[in-house]
Order: sequence, then structure tokens, then C-alpha cells
Amino acid sequence: MATPDIIFYTAKVCPYAQRVEIAFQEAKADVTRYPIDLLNKPEWYAPRVNPASKVPAVVYGSTKSDPENPSPESARVTESLVLLEFVADLYPDSGLLPKDPVERARARFFIDAVSTKVFPPFIAFSFRGESPDAFIAAVAEIQELLPPAAQFAVGDHFTIADAALAPFLGRWELLLRNDLGKFEEGTGPRVYKELFQSERFARLQKYYASISSRESFKNSFDPEYLVAMAKKRLGRQ
Amino acid sequence: MATPDIIFYTAKVCPYAQRVEIAFQEAKADVTRYPIDLLNKPEWYAPRVNPASKVPAVVYGSTKSDPENPSPESARVTESLVLLEFVADLYPDSGLLPKDPVERARARFFIDAVSTKVFPPFIAFSFRGESPDAFIAAVAEIQELLPPAAQFAVGDHFTIADAALAPFLGRWELLLRNDLGKFEEGTGPRVYKELFQSERFARLQKYYASISSRESFKNSFDPEYLVAMAKKRLGRQ
Repeated sequence: MATPDIIFYTAKVCPYAQRVEIAFQEAKADVTRYPIDLLNKPEWYAPRVNPASKVPAVVYGSTKSDPENPSPESARVTESLVLLEFVADLYPDSGLLPKDPVERARARFFIDAVSTKVFPPFIAFSFRGESPDAFIAAVAEIQELLPPAAQFAVGDHFTIADAALAPFLGRWELLLRNDLGKFEEGTGPRVYKELFQSERFARLQKYYASISSRESFKNSFDPEYLVAMAKKRLGRQ
Repeated sequence: MATPDIIFYTAKVCPYAQRVEIAFQEAKADVTRYPIDLLNKPEWYAPRVNPASKVPAVVYGSTKSDPENPSPESARVTESLVLLEFVADLYPDSGLLPKDPVERARARFFIDAVSTKVFPPFIAFSFRGESPDAFIAAVAEIQELLPPAAQFAVGDHFTIADAALAPFLGRWELLLRNDLGKFEEGTGPRVYKELFQSERFARLQKYYASISSRESFKNSFDPEYLVAMAKKRLGRQ
């Protein structure tokens, strides 16, 4: 079966979009990318692509579509976790999801744990300046889910579980190291040392080395740009 | 392939467990059920089955396991949405997930919308006594996702999207009608009439009729028991 056209609306700054970019690259998918400026979205974007007006979004199935005016008959798929499953379904031989139902469940359980356990305390810490303790404890829980002797979240093959976490791990490493967040000065590097240099988080560090050395990650992660955007958001240009 | 043993730890009161019960029944799965009393959990449950000490949980793959002492080599699968995908993966011919990637994405988008949009305002309304307006607005958004001319959430076949929402729709209908919640007296029946009798929610009502007439729903939904448990929780025995 010929793969129908895929138009991928994305933004380099957005970790949710990076999840899907990583999955497409791991699947070696042939994709037309269309960057969306999140601070100045084109007015056709919400009505024609994603009513929620967010990235990532995918238009699928319309041959030779104009990204700014995609065929109404083509399908719209949105929400990063829905899109990760979608890419895995489109490219079953990519290994983005294992074939074994139990392994697939492990990947999904890992993603669920990341969404429900780590994000709320990270936001409280980094965006509202609360204590980092709950965030560090949640990262410790995620570390517990990593298999001791394997490279990735559910074994030695890269899956959507890794794609789901990688953009966030990358941003935590980068922004904490550069002390960029709404916390007291110096807190970022302190938490950075705990998570990315201390013995307690050795397994996480090994995992982050596996993830961050992937081409799919390096191609989709622009540290200078992310630092500049974070400084702008925090009014520290 | 012979299907390995499935032990399903469940509780009639729990809507998350009912999701999985519905999926197993729709898949005509051969399952050993083990009821867990959530107010008096057996002490072996957390260490041997689910460290989070919640239902639903599944032990999979151990032949002739004792449910109270399942083989350590068998797999543990938990979290209701992970389990819905797991049941769909174990029984691909059940139609619990369509074969088409776009249709599968629709089912997952529907589930994501239910989880993120409806649950928080329902909890604020029913458990904290806040205004029902945000909840009613969220249900209206879910109604918008229902295809106008089809029986179920993503077409004319019952999927995990329906299994994910059904237990909650059933409880809303039942508990609002009986005015059971931490809201002002009379608010339940008023919201009940809006959602389950007014013209504005006609499509939702038709959908609820399709869902609630399924054997899988009727077999797993015990109104008298749920009303008694809600009264107990609210101190209105």
C-alpha cells in the first residue's frame, strides 16, 4: 500500500511536537513539515487544521494537499500521545511499539506514569517556583520503571515510551543546568546536579545518554534556540 | 495460539474496573475474576499484584495460577486505559479497536477528551459541590465528538472508546437522578434533566441508550449496589 501524504504541523519549541517528530524520524516516515509560529499562528490554522489551535497536528491521506488549505476529506489527527500511537500503527515494522501485548502495555504504562506523576510537580516547581522535592521524587519513580540492564524504557528497542519522555528529559537537563525557571536563583543547577550527576540517578543518566545520542533526538532538539526562548519567556533576554 | 490464563482483579463499585470488565465481555474473553474489597484490601494484594494497590489489575500468562499468590513470572498489567489497549491487542478480532489507523486514532482522541475535559469538572461539581456549569459544558464538548449518524463513539462498532466512557455515563445518569453528590439538594435531578432529557443533549441520550442496552454494560452495572455505596460515602444511609 502506498502511504498517503502526511502533513505534520510542528514547532521547534514544543516538547509535545518533538515527541511526534522523533517518532516520524524513527519510523523513517516521509513527511511534509509545516512550522507553526505559536506566538503568531496563521488564521487558517484553527479552522482548517486543528480547532484546538495547538501543535502537533497531522493531516493524513490527501494527495498533494496544500498545507495551508488541506483537503477537507483528509483526516486530522491531534494530541501528541494519540499521534505516537498513530505513527506506530502506520509503521508497524518500525518497532515503535513491540508486537507482544505485554510489552506494548509496558510502553503505555510508562507513558501514563510520565503524564500523571512527573508533569504536575514539574510545572509546580518550574513555572510556579514551588519546592523541587515532589518533582525529584516523581523522577525517581520513573527511574524505577527503567529496566536495569536495557537501553530503553521497555527493552533494547526504541519505542513510543522513549519518544514520549525524551523531549522533557532534554528540556529538564538543559533548562535546569542554565538555571532557567521561575524558581530561586541557583535552584536549577542544584536540581540539575541531583538528577544528572548524582549516583542516586545513575540509571536515569545512562538512559538519558542512550536517548540523547539518537539521531532522531539530536535532529529535533536545538539547545540554543530553546535557551533563548526560555529566557524570553522569563523576561531575561 | 492458546490464550494464557488471565486473572482479573476487580470491584463492582469502581468505574475504572468496569471499563475493563466491559472490554473483556465484548471480546468474549475467558477470564478468572477476583473481587477486591476496596475498603478492606487483602494484605497480599499490593506486594503480589499491584503496588499501587488499586483495581483494575490483570495477571497474565501464568497457567493455573492461584489468584492470591500468582506466579512471579506472570505479567502484571494495570491502569484502566492501558488495560483497554491490552484487551484490544489480545483480541484483535473483537473490533475493540478498528484496524484502520485513522479510526484507531479517533477512538484514542475520544478517550483523551473524556479523561482531560470531563473528569476534572465532574469531580469539582460532584465531590466538592462547585457549580455544574463547567461539567455540563464539557459533556457538550464530548457530545460534539459523537458521529451524528452512528451508534457508537467511532462508528457502528463498539470500541474501547465506548468502554472508557460507559461506566461514567452510567454513574452520572444514576447518581444525578438520585440526587447523590456533594451538591445542594435538588441539583442532581436538575442536571440529570439537562443531560438525559433535554433536546440539547439528544445525541448523547441516543448514544447512552446504545451503550446501556449492551449486555456487557448491563452485566457489569448494578444500580442498587452503586446507589447504596454512594449513600454510604455521603453519610446518607
